[in-house]
Amino acid sequence: MKEINVGIMGCGVVGTGVAKLLMENADLLESRIGLRLNLKYVADIDTATDRGIIFDKGVFIPDANTIIDDPDIHIVAELIGGKTAAGELTLRALDKGKHVVTANKALIASSGGAIFRKAAEKGLDFAFEASVGGCMPVIKTIRESLAGNRIYAMKGILNGTCNYILTKISKEGCTFETALGEAQHKGYAEADPFLDVEGHDSAHKLAILISLAYGMEMNLEDIHVEGITGITPMDIRYAGEFGFKIKLLAITKNHGDRVEARVHPAMIPEQNPLSHVNGSMNALTINGDAAGTTMLYGAGAGMMPTASAVVGDIADIARNIMTGSRMRVPILGSPEKNIKKIPIIPVTEISTGYYIRLEAADHPGVLSRISGILGDRGISIKSVHQKGRRSNGTVPVVMITHMALEKEVQRALDEIASLDAIPEKPVLIRIEEEEQ
Amino acid sequence: MKEINVGIMGCGVVGTGVAKLLMENADLLESRIGLRLNLKYVADIDTATDRGIIFDKGVFIPDANTIIDDPDIHIVAELIGGKTAAGELTLRALDKGKHVVTANKALIASSGGAIFRKAAEKGLDFAFEASVGGCMPVIKTIRESLAGNRIYAMKGILNGTCNYILTKISKEGCTFETALGEAQHKGYAEADPFLDVEGHDSAHKLAILISLAYGMEMNLEDIHVEGITGITPMDIRYAGEFGFKIKLLAITKNHGDRVEARVHPAMIPEQNPLSHVNGSMNALTINGDAAGTTMLYGAGAGMMPTASAVVGDIADIARNIMTGSRMRVPILGSPEKNIKKIPIIPVTEISTGYYIRLEAADHPGVLSRISGILGDRGISIKSVHQKGRRSNGTVPVVMITHMALEKEVQRALDEIASLDAIPEKPVLIRIEEEEQ
Repeated sequence: MKEINVGIMGCGVVGTGVAKLLMENADLLESRIGLRLNLKYVADIDTATDRGIIFDKGVFIPDANTIIDDPDIHIVAELIGGKTAAGELTLRALDKGKHVVTANKALIASSGGAIFRKAAEKGLDFAFEASVGGCMPVIKTIRESLAGNRIYAMKGILNGTCNYILTKISKEGCTFETALGEAQHKGYAEADPFLDVEGHDSAHKLAILISLAYGMEMNLEDIHVEGITGITPMDIRYAGEFGFKIKLLAITKNHGDRVEARVHPAMIPEQNPLSHVNGSMNALTINGDAAGTTMLYGAGAGMMPTASAVVGDIADIARNIMTGSRMRVPILGSPEKNIKKIPIIPVTEISTGYYIRLEAADHPGVLSRISGILGDRGISIKSVHQKGRRSNGTVPVVMITHMALEKEVQRALDEIASLDAIPEKPVLIRIEEEEQ
Repeated sequence: MKEINVGIMGCGVVGTGVAKLLMENADLLESRIGLRLNLKYVADIDTATDRGIIFDKGVFIPDANTIIDDPDIHIVAELIGGKTAAGELTLRALDKGKHVVTANKALIASSGGAIFRKAAEKGLDFAFEASVGGCMPVIKTIRESLAGNRIYAMKGILNGTCNYILTKISKEGCTFETALGEAQHKGYAEADPFLDVEGHDSAHKLAILISLAYGMEMNLEDIHVEGITGITPMDIRYAGEFGFKIKLLAITKNHGDRVEARVHPAMIPEQNPLSHVNGSMNALTINGDAAGTTMLYGAGAGMMPTASAVVGDIADIARNIMTGSRMRVPILGSPEKNIKKIPIIPVTEISTGYYIRLEAADHPGVLSRISGILGDRGISIKSVHQKGRRSNGTVPVVMITHMALEKEVQRALDEIASLDAIPEKPVLIRIEEEEQ
């Protein structure tokens, strides 16, 4: 073999980045791998827009099928995004014996199963490091470096848009809407930010991580998801007074026969290394029985950081091809026959600490009434802060609870919200406080 | 093949941890790898001391040669430590066709060359993830995940003992001696802490990292090394006033045909994620042209974190054996023919920012004399703080410089030290301030 031929399907932001990196660092990659990675094709239906790359003649083509049907292509990078076309082309590429690399978390989380089976059946590598955490090597670390560890928990800041927005609210005291506008202006947020700010992008990534960490079938549907649209500067300020930061976290805990997996805004203490992860940066803490807590930190998105992960996967596959190794690391970290169906615990059954903020009419006995309701449900209060009275006659009350059962907390809040003295629905933010 | 046989040479702290992990997580490892990792032998000249492990009959043996000479052994973990016996046994094991895993940074940094050549000649894996940063996957990340990146710089807190001591001085204002005593008492520091506190352990690790990152021959001798024995609570306090933390850093920068590689205490701004790495934890930031800055964080030492890295390497090799892949990833990240000799720039020729503290007699004109000396050597001062007068009549003067050439700074300090008004040698601490 003289060189390894690579084709890129989809020349949007990430596709352009991968093409650039393969071309600019071609000599470096060759000196490391020991063989040339030749970018034979880049396919995109839009060949008119200038990507700032000068391709050799015949490289930039309009039809991805040319790549799939070329018998000389070894590795295909699917960087089209979306599910339908990307999914079909990925399956076709595997059918034609190509190894496939992708950054497409939505595709993997929602219909990974069929792709994994096809790759296994064909004995091909299907690699997706870029789908979670951009340039952070989360997938390689879980599947390979920590292979000897039982993983107990992971907590991640996996969406740069949300982290940028929360950092901005936290530093400037602005509203969610202002921070989102700024994120869109700076290109950190999509024109339609729904998938990001509502937590679904983080949930896609968490679905992938728990599959790898626990050797379980992909299960996106049962992950509890809440976004950050309801986070106010006031709650961020109060959180600070208790020594907490608010982050959108993807959280999983391993209970053996069942696991927790949830995405929601959470308060974390300042000793938690995740609390210092600011702006659009991502990070993931992994807690293993032998390693203890490790953390990976890096740019979770963007053209070149994502390209770095895609090219890392391409280099990995090239080394596999050169040494005749196929499916060296199983797609989900364990051979398919060992992949289990592990149920995700409904969020109502989890226990954690809670921050509760409510506006209460400034009448005698209201606080005692509220603590009575909480106490009746076995929810024990760690601290209560009553703030100065507002012009409308209510006083904000902020409570931090000890560990409590979510179901009981939700019921207690419903009961509290129904009191005449409570004009607004109370705000609830979960606290992740254990040593990480 | 029904199982993969592993032998451990050396049953000290790390050897015991690896044996425990292979035994306790044997089922988990088998379910991930798809084949049993069988711990066939653990060899140590001391078979009397209780390690808290119940071995099957015939597993715990006094002579490592039994492992090397057993044709059924696939993978040998060298966990003896030191250089002579460990080096000889490693070469013998490779000669006998065994893949070798080690945590022995001193051996690799000082005489890795002969081992690498032997492994390459035999087509065997020689793995050493545990030698740098404990459970943090630094070697895998550099050689594999970031294979597409030109690495521009790395900065690491790579010695937990030093970081524990500096954190303690910083939090409690105690002296170096007190902090060291506490570290020894808690088991974070060796009875003979020389290799740690003088920076040599970090230098061993840096030598390995630069070889991998730049594809260069191991070069320990030319790394400039300073330890932390001269760091005072006063300098840590003054650093804080400028928004800096003091850490023992292993630093490298890539200048293309030459590289910087040095270990010394350095001031870093609080925005640098390394500044939040406290206690005995380690971390490494890696700056790549595509990935930007990534950071790995974790326990850099200790029985089980180190065992986690060793077992990760064993799992990797097991997967290579199962898929018939040999030397999939070259030892230094590039095939031997592409490994270059790249010179390390003498420290006198680097440029960085400097913190200078001196005690000056409280006479008119002294400060002007000092700034004159600095100015004559092209050293520009960013800020000067003059502190309150001491009882002996001197005043502490603290200066922060802009980027300056080390050679000129050293000469200026010699000149300043020779002034009558300067009774003590000035203190110099380098500042690493660029965006990381």
